[in-house]
Amino acid sequence: MNVDGKHYRTIWVDQEDPESIEIIDQRSLPHRFETVKLQTVEHAHTAIRDMLVRGAGLIGATAGYGMYLASLSADNKAIHNDLREAGSFLKSARPTARNLAWAVDRILAKVGHLDSSTEIRETALTVANLIADEDAQFCRQIGEHGRSLIEAISSKKAHKRVNILTHCNAGWLAFVDYGSATAPIYAARDAGIDLHVWVDETRPWNQGAKLTCWELQQEGISHTLITDNAGGHLMQQGEVDMVIVGSDRTTYTGDVANKIGTYLKALAAKDNQVPFYVALPSSTFDWSLDRGAAIPIEMRSGDEITSITGQTKSGTIETIRIAPESVVAANYGFDVTPARLVSALITERGIVKANKTAIRKMFPEKIRQVLNNK
Amino acid sequence: MNVDGKHYRTIWVDQEDPESIEIIDQRSLPHRFETVKLQTVEHAHTAIRDMLVRGAGLIGATAGYGMYLASLSADNKAIHNDLREAGSFLKSARPTARNLAWAVDRILAKVGHLDSSTEIRETALTVANLIADEDAQFCRQIGEHGRSLIEAISSKKAHKRVNILTHCNAGWLAFVDYGSATAPIYAARDAGIDLHVWVDETRPWNQGAKLTCWELQQEGISHTLITDNAGGHLMQQGEVDMVIVGSDRTTYTGDVANKIGTYLKALAAKDNQVPFYVALPSSTFDWSLDRGAAIPIEMRSGDEITSITGQTKSGTIETIRIAPESVVAANYGFDVTPARLVSALITERGIVKANKTAIRKMFPEKIRQVLNNK
Repeated sequence: MNVDGKHYRTIWVDQEDPESIEIIDQRSLPHRFETVKLQTVEHAHTAIRDMLVRGAGLIGATAGYGMYLASLSADNKAIHNDLREAGSFLKSARPTARNLAWAVDRILAKVGHLDSSTEIRETALTVANLIADEDAQFCRQIGEHGRSLIEAISSKKAHKRVNILTHCNAGWLAFVDYGSATAPIYAARDAGIDLHVWVDETRPWNQGAKLTCWELQQEGISHTLITDNAGGHLMQQGEVDMVIVGSDRTTYTGDVANKIGTYLKALAAKDNQVPFYVALPSSTFDWSLDRGAAIPIEMRSGDEITSITGQTKSGTIETIRIAPESVVAANYGFDVTPARLVSALITERGIVKANKTAIRKMFPEKIRQVLNNK
Repeated sequence: MNVDGKHYRTIWVDQEDPESIEIIDQRSLPHRFETVKLQTVEHAHTAIRDMLVRGAGLIGATAGYGMYLASLSADNKAIHNDLREAGSFLKSARPTARNLAWAVDRILAKVGHLDSSTEIRETALTVANLIADEDAQFCRQIGEHGRSLIEAISSKKAHKRVNILTHCNAGWLAFVDYGSATAPIYAARDAGIDLHVWVDETRPWNQGAKLTCWELQQEGISHTLITDNAGGHLMQQGEVDMVIVGSDRTTYTGDVANKIGTYLKALAAKDNQVPFYVALPSSTFDWSLDRGAAIPIEMRSGDEITSITGQTKSGTIETIRIAPESVVAANYGFDVTPARLVSALITERGIVKANKTAIRKMFPEKIRQVLNNK
């Protein structure tokens, strides 16, 4: 997508040094656009844990390239063992993120039967590239499928402006390109539909205020920043036509783990008959879990709530404390929206109801795999 | 209540200069405890509008004293007219706050038949003092009634810790003393009940993080700061036994206007069978409104969302920008929780179901007044 008119992905192999991976340091946005080089699996782990990169798809892609970086430094004689250890290490960076484990396991599976360490390294890079390319491709497809939902609402409103609410950033910054929740928005914009996005600021990390607003600004899409508290009121006032969010992990029964606060928006959508959609590539499905309550919920440092970083009037970046000294803060990263509150899932294969039967029908080979593993 | 072990109310007549009113500048909390003198009705208006004081009861008490200050500077020959104008001016400071209009009208009614400007000034002070004293008294009574609800839950849990979630600050800082939502908590603590409070930070102004945490800290009550997004997840996990919030205006049919985001917590409470209580002195009832949709919802500056003030590591107070330049932010101050989501109201007269019949039975003289006015 666009950054000051230039096309970027969120992660790419350095053209001059193919043993380096480049990412955008998302912690500096929206105030500064900075890229960072990853050269070791430790770099990749830190980038995921400290949220230089975040979001379902981009965590997956970074994990893929992290495994490639691990292969570069692995001992030729113990490369399989080194890669398994690197995989466990990477998985520990963000416990809720499904795409992380998925990408690690995909690389491990592809190199498992290989003997030559050269071949293992080449394969790791090939698969990491494939993960990134597929991610972008699947997000594009999500955009096409989701666009039809926006078009239908636009028609029903006699082409008056469609108001879409989103939570957190499931934009192109959360993937390799296009985004999941934003892909239908970009596709609808390209199709000439008049639309406006309500952006939840998404405390405590403010992905909405920092990233989604910045992305939409770069893409020239009309949007308004609101507090996470405001969405229910807007729905009561008829100011929201649909909600589209992303997901960090979705069970094959349709329960959706996503950024903390998503569940509250789903409840408000239900109470006001506003359709509530979740956009996700199939890599976000957890084919081993049949209920959301089993999804591990990451706890992060309370400092993310009690302190906040931004830009002073003089342009310097400053961190300030916004709560009393010594207060205890509990920072839950995600919540689970039960399938009963989800109107439908938007996947790369199409729009599917959030229940086991419908999901099985759309991804028969995945469900088969689950049953075989049981 | 306590500030560093010393008893304070939130507003009082200066002992050395009875023509000055003193308040705590709540914008400086929790980092600094500062008091400010109000000497004119303009001072009182600014204190309410710019949120040096906030909260249902304290806005009412400040409006009462503001009318007294207006009487001091009024032209003896046009004092009634001057007071009516001062009243309209004060009411414009915060459109959703019911207690503001209520206090202004109460003073106007009490001085309406008086001729002597000396007598008018004395009466204005007497009534303003009465409003403040009653506010403290009613909050104490709310505490006693609400304590019984907490005791019942404590008994049911075999005296295990009771977890109470609250939104915004309906604490003693929002009233003259004790608070509404916090009064039952303080009363239960005095009765030896083991309890813990989940404090919603309450974006954008962060009344929870700044004020409720500070208050509970001063009173030695166990509490944890959370984002506004987290309450639904905590309820799903069984970590919330009850919700108690305040109100800025409640219709006589039981619809509750309160700080933006309250409605989302009420939905989550309903979805998880958690009792949801609203604590309010009867001065917060709007006896002229039969439905919440008719309550005017204040819009505040978007700057309250895009910028935030706090303390740097070096101890200075700094304001930083936390969203991209030129982003548009919409700042809705309140939302309306429909009566169907409210388990009960806790008033100074007792606990009452949130419906017209029950409210009429508890406040028969008020409802009579409504009917007479129609």
